[in-house]
Amino acid sequence: MKSLDIHKSEYLKQFNNQPYGRNLFRTQEEERLDAPNEECGIFGMYSDNDVDTFSLSQFGLFALQHRGQEACGISVLKDGRITNMKDEGLVLDVYKEIQDPEAFMGNSAIGHTRYTTAGDKKKYNFQPFFAKNEYDQIILSIAHNGNLTNAKELKAELEAEGVVFRATSDSEVILRLIQKNLDLGLRGAIKATMEKIQGAYSVVGMTRNKFFAFRDFNGIRPLVLGAIDEKTYVVASESVALDAVGAQYVRDILPGEIIYTNENEPGKLHSYMMNEKGKQRICSFEYIYFARPDSTLENINVYEIREKSGEKIWHQAPVEADVVIGVPDSGVPAAIGFSKASGIPFRPVLIKNRYIGRSFIVPTQEMRERVVNLKLNPIISEIKDKRVVIIDDSIVRGTTSKRLVKILKDAGVKEIHFRSVSPPIIAPCYLGIDTPSKDDLISANMSTEELRKYLGVDSLEFLSTDNLKEILGSSNHCFGCFTEQYPVEKGEEIELFN
Amino acid sequence: MKSLDIHKSEYLKQFNNQPYGRNLFRTQEEERLDAPNEECGIFGMYSDNDVDTFSLSQFGLFALQHRGQEACGISVLKDGRITNMKDEGLVLDVYKEIQDPEAFMGNSAIGHTRYTTAGDKKKYNFQPFFAKNEYDQIILSIAHNGNLTNAKELKAELEAEGVVFRATSDSEVILRLIQKNLDLGLRGAIKATMEKIQGAYSVVGMTRNKFFAFRDFNGIRPLVLGAIDEKTYVVASESVALDAVGAQYVRDILPGEIIYTNENEPGKLHSYMMNEKGKQRICSFEYIYFARPDSTLENINVYEIREKSGEKIWHQAPVEADVVIGVPDSGVPAAIGFSKASGIPFRPVLIKNRYIGRSFIVPTQEMRERVVNLKLNPIISEIKDKRVVIIDDSIVRGTTSKRLVKILKDAGVKEIHFRSVSPPIIAPCYLGIDTPSKDDLISANMSTEELRKYLGVDSLEFLSTDNLKEILGSSNHCFGCFTEQYPVEKGEEIELFN
Amino acid sequence: MKSLDIHKSEYLKQFNNQPYGRNLFRTQEEERLDAPNEECGIFGMYSDNDVDTFSLSQFGLFALQHRGQEACGISVLKDGRITNMKDEGLVLDVYKEIQDPEAFMGNSAIGHTRYTTAGDKKKYNFQPFFAKNEYDQIILSIAHNGNLTNAKELKAELEAEGVVFRATSDSEVILRLIQKNLDLGLRGAIKATMEKIQGAYSVVGMTRNKFFAFRDFNGIRPLVLGAIDEKTYVVASESVALDAVGAQYVRDILPGEIIYTNENEPGKLHSYMMNEKGKQRICSFEYIYFARPDSTLENINVYEIREKSGEKIWHQAPVEADVVIGVPDSGVPAAIGFSKASGIPFRPVLIKNRYIGRSFIVPTQEMRERVVNLKLNPIISEIKDKRVVIIDDSIVRGTTSKRLVKILKDAGVKEIHFRSVSPPIIAPCYLGIDTPSKDDLISANMSTEELRKYLGVDSLEFLSTDNLKEILGSSNHCFGCFTEQYPVEKGEEIELFN
Amino acid sequence: MKSLDIHKSEYLKQFNNQPYGRNLFRTQEEERLDAPNEECGIFGMYSDNDVDTFSLSQFGLFALQHRGQEACGISVLKDGRITNMKDEGLVLDVYKEIQDPEAFMGNSAIGHTRYTTAGDKKKYNFQPFFAKNEYDQIILSIAHNGNLTNAKELKAELEAEGVVFRATSDSEVILRLIQKNLDLGLRGAIKATMEKIQGAYSVVGMTRNKFFAFRDFNGIRPLVLGAIDEKTYVVASESVALDAVGAQYVRDILPGEIIYTNENEPGKLHSYMMNEKGKQRICSFEYIYFARPDSTLENINVYEIREKSGEKIWHQAPVEADVVIGVPDSGVPAAIGFSKASGIPFRPVLIKNRYIGRSFIVPTQEMRERVVNLKLNPIISEIKDKRVVIIDDSIVRGTTSKRLVKILKDAGVKEIHFRSVSPPIIAPCYLGIDTPSKDDLISANMSTEELRKYLGVDSLEFLSTDNLKEILGSSNHCFGCFTEQYPVEKGEEIELFN
Repeated sequence: MKSLDIHKSEYLKQFNNQPYGRNLFRTQEEERLDAPNEECGIFGMYSDNDVDTFSLSQFGLFALQHRGQEACGISVLKDGRITNMKDEGLVLDVYKEIQDPEAFMGNSAIGHTRYTTAGDKKKYNFQPFFAKNEYDQIILSIAHNGNLTNAKELKAELEAEGVVFRATSDSEVILRLIQKNLDLGLRGAIKATMEKIQGAYSVVGMTRNKFFAFRDFNGIRPLVLGAIDEKTYVVASESVALDAVGAQYVRDILPGEIIYTNENEPGKLHSYMMNEKGKQRICSFEYIYFARPDSTLENINVYEIREKSGEKIWHQAPVEADVVIGVPDSGVPAAIGFSKASGIPFRPVLIKNRYIGRSFIVPTQEMRERVVNLKLNPIISEIKDKRVVIIDDSIVRGTTSKRLVKILKDAGVKEIHFRSVSPPIIAPCYLGIDTPSKDDLISANMSTEELRKYLGVDSLEFLSTDNLKEILGSSNHCFGCFTEQYPVEKGEEIELFN
Repeated sequence: MKSLDIHKSEYLKQFNNQPYGRNLFRTQEEERLDAPNEECGIFGMYSDNDVDTFSLSQFGLFALQHRGQEACGISVLKDGRITNMKDEGLVLDVYKEIQDPEAFMGNSAIGHTRYTTAGDKKKYNFQPFFAKNEYDQIILSIAHNGNLTNAKELKAELEAEGVVFRATSDSEVILRLIQKNLDLGLRGAIKATMEKIQGAYSVVGMTRNKFFAFRDFNGIRPLVLGAIDEKTYVVASESVALDAVGAQYVRDILPGEIIYTNENEPGKLHSYMMNEKGKQRICSFEYIYFARPDSTLENINVYEIREKSGEKIWHQAPVEADVVIGVPDSGVPAAIGFSKASGIPFRPVLIKNRYIGRSFIVPTQEMRERVVNLKLNPIISEIKDKRVVIIDDSIVRGTTSKRLVKILKDAGVKEIHFRSVSPPIIAPCYLGIDTPSKDDLISANMSTEELRKYLGVDSLEFLSTDNLKEILGSSNHCFGCFTEQYPVEKGEEIELFN
Repeated sequence: MKSLDIHKSEYLKQFNNQPYGRNLFRTQEEERLDAPNEECGIFGMYSDNDVDTFSLSQFGLFALQHRGQEACGISVLKDGRITNMKDEGLVLDVYKEIQDPEAFMGNSAIGHTRYTTAGDKKKYNFQPFFAKNEYDQIILSIAHNGNLTNAKELKAELEAEGVVFRATSDSEVILRLIQKNLDLGLRGAIKATMEKIQGAYSVVGMTRNKFFAFRDFNGIRPLVLGAIDEKTYVVASESVALDAVGAQYVRDILPGEIIYTNENEPGKLHSYMMNEKGKQRICSFEYIYFARPDSTLENINVYEIREKSGEKIWHQAPVEADVVIGVPDSGVPAAIGFSKASGIPFRPVLIKNRYIGRSFIVPTQEMRERVVNLKLNPIISEIKDKRVVIIDDSIVRGTTSKRLVKILKDAGVKEIHFRSVSPPIIAPCYLGIDTPSKDDLISANMSTEELRKYLGVDSLEFLSTDNLKEILGSSNHCFGCFTEQYPVEKGEEIELFN
Repeated sequence: MKSLDIHKSEYLKQFNNQPYGRNLFRTQEEERLDAPNEECGIFGMYSDNDVDTFSLSQFGLFALQHRGQEACGISVLKDGRITNMKDEGLVLDVYKEIQDPEAFMGNSAIGHTRYTTAGDKKKYNFQPFFAKNEYDQIILSIAHNGNLTNAKELKAELEAEGVVFRATSDSEVILRLIQKNLDLGLRGAIKATMEKIQGAYSVVGMTRNKFFAFRDFNGIRPLVLGAIDEKTYVVASESVALDAVGAQYVRDILPGEIIYTNENEPGKLHSYMMNEKGKQRICSFEYIYFARPDSTLENINVYEIREKSGEKIWHQAPVEADVVIGVPDSGVPAAIGFSKASGIPFRPVLIKNRYIGRSFIVPTQEMRERVVNLKLNPIISEIKDKRVVIIDDSIVRGTTSKRLVKILKDAGVKEIHFRSVSPPIIAPCYLGIDTPSKDDLISANMSTEELRKYLGVDSLEFLSTDNLKEILGSSNHCFGCFTEQYPVEKGEEIELFN
């Protein structure tokens, strides 16, 4: 039995006065860095029918929790007064100690689940954002999913005019622009804002007597509309949030569309189309990785796309093998599709530990390798001495893939055929997804054959962009991270805002 | 659109000065009640080789988190001093703020993850338990998985002798018996204890200079032994905990076996077999539901049993259908086995929300129904208008099954064929699993046909006990909850202890 | 030995689910009710000379702690940014955990110590108050001592204009009036405010580039001006706060005077006199009870007045006695004066327990009597069998006096001659002091002879108003509570504001 | 106006990452160091008459708060179960949140107020101490005032026998000795303990069925006995605690006396005299400084001694002067005595700020000087241009005296005549008082004339030891710190214990 690097003396060198546990489980942070990360989910409700918008918003956000687990927030409108409640933590934890829910059950509520990058886990960056008047009353609140490409210059412009920013997020630019233009009326203020901002944005919001939502001219981030009854509307990032509150899906919000209520016609929802060019270009990675498989976006079910991607890659790159396995969770439907197309049996062989916290750190390199097994443990008997096809949704930095390969080899597999059901990621996203810079994107720096050798696998294949377009049924999507062609000007790399 | 019971006025009637969130998500509690609940996972390590037993114990417990999420605890032995750290919460949370880990990295550590029933979530019931001497020093600490059937009478007997109990758990009877007999030497004290106690028990423990573990005469709860190096031993409820710390599986602890170290021979592990009757009768439900699929207990891999159970029930009760689905997580391997045997395609169609907290409560009945979708949402397109086989591990109270059927019907399935890959549960467990009383076990009160009608499904079938024995390869298991035949005297129903 | 009412059984009847300690020591609350209570002390500094205004403000407030112990607050101006820090507690406690004091050491600071009546111990009523702009920046902050008599109607007027109030204190009316009028310039805004408000007010404040202070037309509440150097000014309720920061006394702020700095002439202090009628009418009770004996207000030293009041009442009502004692703390100087005039020896015989908290409650009547001794214990040997003159500053409700008499009688005194060195209090104060309503003022309901009998003393005398005027050297004071003649219209009894 | 050292730039150099407030007010710590400090007050009650011993113990401790403000503790005996509650803070704060007082109202209670030196403010050093049995039940609890001179060697001896200590206080030696000898019966265990320990000790304590108190052979620290009724006894450090609970003074506990109850005769108090040499040698400093003036110890009233000390020093060292002032609080009675004897008028001219917290720190030397005025501010008009006699209880390090002199000079006094009503302190105390080492005792290092010059006063006089003996009426006291003659062997300087 070989001597292991798990001895106390070596450990202790590595602790730098950090709380122990944070050190012990650092690996998770690394894995987070090795995945594209969506920056949020948004949800909004309006009812003129005495519906408890506060509780239902929690249900809605709970269904969108996969889009952000660091923080969440809800703004509620009740009796002309907006209250904002946001904090670090999961939806189920943040609201569980509220003593007087009745105080928050009003006509309208908007909510946000936030995925935060390490550096700016400051409460002032949590959403919904809000603006106050001189008497400390909230007069406007919004929740935003996406990323502005001209936030930096707009911020400078506004500051020159005397506007004061409280946060370091581009979402505040949207807030301040609407606030500044409120004397044009709410719709006028949103129009003026959309004429200024560039990039990807799906937004829900409220004033003290109106509810609204709007989406950028390319519809890059998803936004769907549903209804509970004829006076109760719901807007959310994904259809699963409609399911969660018992709402029927009505349609997706259109690119360049503003929807809003009007104080004189409570219960009625209005739509206004910005007369600017732009057409549907929803992010293709939503289907590959972000969205829940039970969501339907732009009338396309996510699970189906994933299953088809597995079928398709079998046809693109067939291989003889004994078993096909998927990396949980998003690789599993593709593995099932691959199995269906190829006849090679599917086995759920990688067991994921679900009780994972947010931080996961270990001090020594060898311990770090070991921790991978903590989170993903194989059922050895099912793969030992077998030819294995392993399907993952994508390869970003390559570190996780390399660890997976090691797990499989340690389990004694005979051959490894790695399949990524997305094309090689060669460029960062500027439109709302947290990706590494080009230097860290392994496919921007290695050919497929180089990567195959680096991973040490018998074959490696990426789904082609054409095949991806084919299963999506059209090219009305953003494929920027695969093609470096973005539906909008990408702007400069943004430092202040993330 | 029908009028829903989600209006504020109805809500508020139902709040009884309870913190809101606890009320809002009560359903989870109900679901917990509708499953058999394992009461814990245990872990222990001993090293004479400078291994960091404290950090590795956390890894081990993390791998056993599925056996109990309410609380966890670790006792460590360092420099002849035992320290105990236990608290409510997950392993990753409880230990993350420790400032001086070096203080706890000693020769030995034992740990426990606790599943707690609502009524006794008191810190004094968390494990490991410990006994102190008159100078407030811990001299003995144990962690126990199982249930004693004669705890009540033993407690009364000990109290009459002047022993004082601090907790309301049967595990303390084991502690106090060993403590009381320590002047017989450690092995003598354990022997004296095993001669007294009846029921199911897997125990790890330590004194200020020794480490030990022992298992009841029928080996009802699992307990495996592994090694990291020739002076570093690991004992755990399941083999996944060995994987988590990089230990090699050595063998299962035998029924009636005591293993222990000796202060004169550090690094050497001794074994002592109690010369009492008893033979291997490990709980069959470990394979069906509790254990992780990647665990191997008594040389049988859990995943394989589950896949085989699906194959077997197809042969026992074949049916024509379009798709087979499994209730996540434990029903999925069986569904794959069913698919394999039958050729009916498997689809992972029930999407489980993983961000679930511990409490989940809603105020109105209709809201409660809706919350089911929050946790388990179907991909409608895959099952609509189809004949569906749904496979669950078991049916306990029937409430969850009934809700599942409603979800499927709401999604528009044409036929539902329900399969339970365990036999009907007709009797409570007295040996370490938290089951409802007979009155609440639906199969104790309805025939299969009655239950089929109650659930409203097209067919319903339970795996037969004989078939279960066949796939397990022997009848060396406890099938008490299916047969009401227990490998030990079951004792009276126990009130004080749980 | 008589049977006492201290038995557990009687106790427990009286606990009504209240935290125990609060119940145990209720008496102090009663005593607080039996004294006139000043509502605050204020302090302000401005320096163009790099002085640490933040630390010195704490010194200043510490010296004014006797004017309010419930809460305190400081607003600081640094680099054009106002920060406000206020909390429940003593000055020494509230600021002791500040980690980065440099962040608060700027040009200007204002502070407040608050005496709060039980009902409104809400943080929003703590001072300094502040007003924000639409970007959440504080643009104005004030601290106020006094009471407005037309706050209710002004508030209604402002609310009709759309102004939103955050607190329930009359001080906010001053804040909102200045805020509303800021476009008249700071001086103009203060003028407009003083033209509106009626009653007693001493105010210090700051904007983001100016410091100011002003005092009502009768100078009812004190306000003194000092200087540390030629560019560093201090304004405070009492001269002791000047001593505390090492400032020299310059003069008292005049009735109807505004002092302020100007952003173009840093370091220069301007004065503006409102051209309205009004003349000095400082509260006479400041000398009798509120102010510290080492303070000098309007060029009159407080200690001297107190000593003279004792001399004067001897001449007004001489008596043969063996010893003269004073009720600590404010009765002691008068007792010394009495001794000096009469030749009767003074003894500091009532020992006050200084470790008293804010709440002091006992369950039974007899225990309550006993608690008096906890706070005020006599040295029996000095008074037993003697003829005692006891001097107190005033008699409000009479309950404390009655208890004092009981203490003396229990100690075995032969005769008790009670002297109040203020005239009978027959009317409430509407100008900044928290007094009971007329119904509870014992001198408004009993003649001196009736009160003598009620107290059970051998003689009782109040200093006459004429004698009080004589020792104060003029009638330029407010004697409203003795005469029911107020220097301003007293307004209606105010409910909302206190 | 001179330039002051209060500028921000100088400040900031001096902050060393310490919380700001602690730095700001350090002076108080210095003053604490410049006074002898008593280490505690103790209190105990026993009742067989249903008296609420828990509430009354709080009253008693509140009356003894002057003997220690850092921490307090109470052990109660109810229904054979001892509970211990101790924490940092004042009596009024520590117990105010108790929810279920009934649980603590039992037959017996003992309590302690602790004065702690900075280094060991650890909870394990708070009293009452307690010992547990192997089932974690408290079987013995004691509270101790005093200091053992042979604690170090006794501790070593006990540890060699296997006894484990939890605290670093000498009081635990007493606890462990009694615990170890409990099989001799309670009285036997106390006797065995008293035969071992040397030094000063007044102790109260309880077992699960007995109450006890005992005092060292010289009665160095005070201990009085009182009664509420014929079955309710009280023991306390000072008679004021008897007053506080309504108890009648019975007598002082005798040197070498043990009093105790017996489980067979509830309500009856027994006395046992150790037949060892020893006679009354109570600490003379109790009269000069520690005890409250309203206390009576060994039948001598404290106030009377203080007044007489002022009279006596006038006769010892008369002087012509205009006014006599006392340093509050303990110098005031002496000043009154001096005035009475000399005819020179007494004025209460030094005003002490009562709202002082425990920490008081300033960064620069000049600020530090200023802070003295924060705590002690003179009424200048009463002393300016006058010849002043100032009377303090003692001079320890001399730093406070020097500051006082500066305050008087700054106020413009013409002459200063300093009188200490205790003799020069030339040696540390080893018997329960926290004094500086000899190096820091100014009178151990300077003659009176040298000290007069150092202080810069016109005359300086210490009460002579003979005169002190005369006013105390006998030499049956400890004068160790004045004479270096201790009634017991002083032992080595003790490091571990304080």
